[in-house]
Amino acid sequence: MVSHRTVGRLSLYRRLLNGLAGQGTRNVYSHQLAAMAGATPAQVRRDLMAVGYMGSSTHGYDVSELTKSIGNFLDDQTGQAAALFGIGNLGRAILSYFTGRRPNLSIVAAFDVDENKIGRVIHGCRCYSVEELETVARENDIRLGILAVPAAAAQNVAENMVRAGFRGILNFAPAPLKVPAGVYVEDIDMTMSLEKVAYFARQGARLQAAEIVEQENSRVLETAKGDQQ
Amino acid sequence: MVSHRTVGRLSLYRRLLNGLAGQGTRNVYSHQLAAMAGATPAQVRRDLMAVGYMGSSTHGYDVSELTKSIGNFLDDQTGQAAALFGIGNLGRAILSYFTGRRPNLSIVAAFDVDENKIGRVIHGCRCYSVEELETVARENDIRLGILAVPAAAAQNVAENMVRAGFRGILNFAPAPLKVPAGVYVEDIDMTMSLEKVAYFARQGARLQAAEIVEQENSRVLETAKGDQQ
Repeated sequence: MVSHRTVGRLSLYRRLLNGLAGQGTRNVYSHQLAAMAGATPAQVRRDLMAVGYMGSSTHGYDVSELTKSIGNFLDDQTGQAAALFGIGNLGRAILSYFTGRRPNLSIVAAFDVDENKIGRVIHGCRCYSVEELETVARENDIRLGILAVPAAAAQNVAENMVRAGFRGILNFAPAPLKVPAGVYVEDIDMTMSLEKVAYFARQGARLQAAEIVEQENSRVLETAKGDQQ
Repeated sequence: MVSHRTVGRLSLYRRLLNGLAGQGTRNVYSHQLAAMAGATPAQVRRDLMAVGYMGSSTHGYDVSELTKSIGNFLDDQTGQAAALFGIGNLGRAILSYFTGRRPNLSIVAAFDVDENKIGRVIHGCRCYSVEELETVARENDIRLGILAVPAAAAQNVAENMVRAGFRGILNFAPAPLKVPAGVYVEDIDMTMSLEKVAYFARQGARLQAAEIVEQENSRVLETAKGDQQ
C-alpha cells in the first residue's frame, strides 16, 4: 500500500492537472508538475509510478491520460458512500461543500442527536439518529465517515463508527481520536490552524516593525555620521 | 521564535485543558497531557517551557494557570483582526464557525467579487470589494487572512493580501500559494483530506475482506485436515 503522503500528492496532482486541462494544456513534464506541487521531479515520477502511468521522455505526461490513471487509482470505480456526523454549522458547510464535488464519492447519510434534524433532508442528505447507524451503514455500504460533532462527543461517535465497520474517518472535531489499527483517521482542526497563522502573522508583523525601527535607527546613525563629517 | 509544530501543540493543549477544566480537574501532569495530545511527556515539558510556565513536581500543572499562560503566549492581548476572502458556501461556513470562538480573534471584514454581496453584512461581517482591501486592512490593522476563493483566483488574491501587508494566510483554496518569506501560510485542503481518507477506508475494507477470505480458507483447510484424520 502506498503512503498517505503519496496519496495526498496524487490528489494534489489531479487538482493541478484539471487546472492545466482547463487552460488547454495537453502535456506536462514531471519537473513542471513538481514545481506546481512543491515537490521534487523524482518524487513526482515515483508517485506516478505507483499509479502505473509512464510518461514519454520527449513529451512528458499526457494531461488527460494521467488524470484518468490517477482517478483509476484514487477513486472507487463503483462509487463510494460517506456519512456525516454532526449537522451544526460546520456539518452543513461540509455537506454543501462536498455535494457533487467528486462524482464517485457522495455523502449519502447524516447523523445527529437533535430530534429536529432527524428524519429531515438537509442539503439533499437524509438525517438519521445515531441508533440507526449500523443499519444505515450496512444498507448503504458506508465505510467512510466525516466527524463534525463537538469535541466532547467525538470519541464516543468514533467508537460507534468503528463498531459499524467504518474504515476511514475525516475528523473535524478538535479532539484526538483513539481508534483500532486498520482505521485511518485524518484530522482537520480549523481552530488550531487559525491560531497558528494568527500567531505567526503577529510575529511577522513584529519582525517587520523591528526592521523598520532598525532601519530608522541606522538612518539616524547615518545622518549623525553625515553631520560629523 | 518557536516552531509551527510547537504552536500547533500549544493550541491543542489549551483545548484539552479547557476540557479538563470543564470536568472540574484542577491539576494535570505532563504525562497525562502528553497521552491526551499524542505527544511525549518530554515534548510537553519543552513546549510549556516556551510559554514560560513551570509545573510543580508534586502536583503537576495547575490547569487554570497553565491555560492562562498559553493564552498569554498564543493570543494577541489587545485583540487581533482577520479578514475572509470569498463568501461562498465555505466562506459562510468559516464565518459562522469562527464567529465568537476566540474572543481575542475576530473576522472583521470579508471580501468578494460578487456585486450582490459587497456592502452587505453576512453573519455579522461587512463585505467589501477587493479594491477596498488596502484601505480596510490599514484602518482595521488586519494582517491575517482566511482564503476561501476558488483555486484559480487564490494566487492573485494572496498577492493582493501580501501587498496590503498581510503576514499570515489560512488557505482553504486547493492551490499551493507562492508568497514572499515572512508571510506564513497554513493550508487546509478539505477535498484532498477526504480523498485520502476515502482511499485508505477502501484499502482497509479490502484488507478486511482479504482477511475474512483467508480465515475462511484456513477454516476450509482445517476441516479438510480434520476429514483426513
